[in-house]
Amino acid sequence: MNLKEYVREIPDFPKPGIGFKDVFGIFSNPKALKACIDQLADLVSPEEYDVIIGPEARGFLVGMPVAYLKEKPFVPVRKPGKLPGEVVSIEYELEYGTDRLEMQKDSILPGQRVLILDDLLATGGTTKAMTQMVENAGAKIVACCFVMELDFLQGRALLTDYPVQSLIHYDAE
Amino acid sequence: MNLKEYVREIPDFPKPGIGFKDVFGIFSNPKALKACIDQLADLVSPEEYDVIIGPEARGFLVGMPVAYLKEKPFVPVRKPGKLPGEVVSIEYELEYGTDRLEMQKDSILPGQRVLILDDLLATGGTTKAMTQMVENAGAKIVACCFVMELDFLQGRALLTDYPVQSLIHYDAE
Repeated sequence: MNLKEYVREIPDFPKPGIGFKDVFGIFSNPKALKACIDQLADLVSPEEYDVIIGPEARGFLVGMPVAYLKEKPFVPVRKPGKLPGEVVSIEYELEYGTDRLEMQKDSILPGQRVLILDDLLATGGTTKAMTQMVENAGAKIVACCFVMELDFLQGRALLTDYPVQSLIHYDAE
Repeated sequence: MNLKEYVREIPDFPKPGIGFKDVFGIFSNPKALKACIDQLADLVSPEEYDVIIGPEARGFLVGMPVAYLKEKPFVPVRKPGKLPGEVVSIEYELEYGTDRLEMQKDSILPGQRVLILDDLLATGGTTKAMTQMVENAGAKIVACCFVMELDFLQGRALLTDYPVQSLIHYDAE
């Protein structure tokens, strides 16, 4: 199945001149949804990782079904103040200013092998921050896998230390 | 499996005196995660509904795996400005002020039978707003299903027009 056929292109979102690639087009079709999750789950053998992490909100969409399918724990990464209990956090740079991500303390343990899942690789800033948070916890990134990758934003250049795989590529806006 | 054993209780979050019930305790254990999704998916026969909707962010965690498992479309409900393309929206009341939810236009069609999934039934405000948005689209709510329900907040009282089912109940803070 060619998943790209199910991605909706929305003109002028979030800004004029940008054609937004809408992953919910895939999830609105049960066969495409199933193929997307199955293909994502098959990118890395479950023997190679111990735990899946994914950032809110859209990383939850793909991280949980793969965790279900491969019988792995799912660990959420969230924006500040959303996770209860003790958290570890990391600050990262945006085009203007900074942002912060949080993960529950001890949700990733030293030595664990971690698979990062998200719907989209764009500039790579969020993913890079997640890799640092995982490594700060003494764990190891096995791979970073995405449904869609905007090749022209070169997010992959921030992630050269890790295998990066995406199901769908866009080489231009 | 008794899922309640896996819910983490976090004292004094988000406010002093509140014991937060942390659903991520379930998702941090692969067997509990699988049992949770399987039990949730079994609450309503897949022959009874056409589409699953769930609100960001935690509704995504349970809506997508059940959609995968039962081969249904998944439709997201999000906070304002997050969804691309034309949206329909609904305003609803909070304790102080109002909030707004959005859904992509034509993501729910007239006559469709809709299952609402979320992790938590608390006061019921978000769920009630979702039921109204679905009905405004000419579709029908089949049931509202949750992992956890805080019975003492009486959210169910807002949803008397629909079957409501939860896997775990808390009858007091």
